[in-house]
Amino acid sequence: MLGRINHIAIAVPDLARATATYRDVLGARVSQPQALPEHGVSVVFVELDNTKVELLEPLGADSPIRSFLEKAPTGGMHHICYEVEDILAARDRLKASGLRVLGDGNPKIGAHGKPVLFLHPKDLDGTLVEIEEV
Amino acid sequence: MLGRINHIAIAVPDLARATATYRDVLGARVSQPQALPEHGVSVVFVELDNTKVELLEPLGADSPIRSFLEKAPTGGMHHICYEVEDILAARDRLKASGLRVLGDGNPKIGAHGKPVLFLHPKDLDGTLVEIEEV
Repeated sequence: MLGRINHIAIAVPDLARATATYRDVLGARVSQPQALPEHGVSVVFVELDNTKVELLEPLGADSPIRSFLEKAPTGGMHHICYEVEDILAARDRLKASGLRVLGDGNPKIGAHGKPVLFLHPKDLDGTLVEIEEV
Repeated sequence: MLGRINHIAIAVPDLARATATYRDVLGARVSQPQALPEHGVSVVFVELDNTKVELLEPLGADSPIRSFLEKAPTGGMHHICYEVEDILAARDRLKASGLRVLGDGNPKIGAHGKPVLFLHPKDLDGTLVEIEEV
């Protein structure tokens, strides 16, 4: 069911500083920052040869990244996003296996304009997993 | 400097259970478990289409995964490994930029038989980064 890893998301307290580190110190290709107010984040994409890292900074009071950074002010790995071919079929299979889908169970349109769902980290060894239909 | 993401490592409290979840619920290809006593871990490789996830369970009293799981008993994302062409050149560039290399600064032979180094997570937004020469 799982296809490619679409991205690994890292929550950062200072997006400009993190971007400079990945670009200037680690020598990676980075995008311009994008504000995604509907997702409560500003994001920079770090393009690796086979996948990407997304650096996420909180945007707005209701940002889902804000509480994460309150617990881990330095930042840290936030989630892994896997691609799936059919998100509704994936959701139904996961739910039938006892995994909890976050929210109301209906896919939302994610940061890349594709349907996404998040799975409860307690069901996956403490790892927040996003699935994205591609 | 950074090439491909070689793997994302996830620390898990129960390798057999985690492996079954990735194989049977998430439908991923998984390897047989391998004991790597010199690294203090037992590992299962989850093969995705473009990279892999490594599930790590502590092995032995000195396992570097053990203290991680004491703080996060459910498990969680442990590190990201990036490929580099020349690990000594990468190390020198990173150190010149003020990043801290863990240990004595000399590459060790990692789980794939290649030279590896780890970078201090406080210098990289709370993310433990491994670099591996390929």
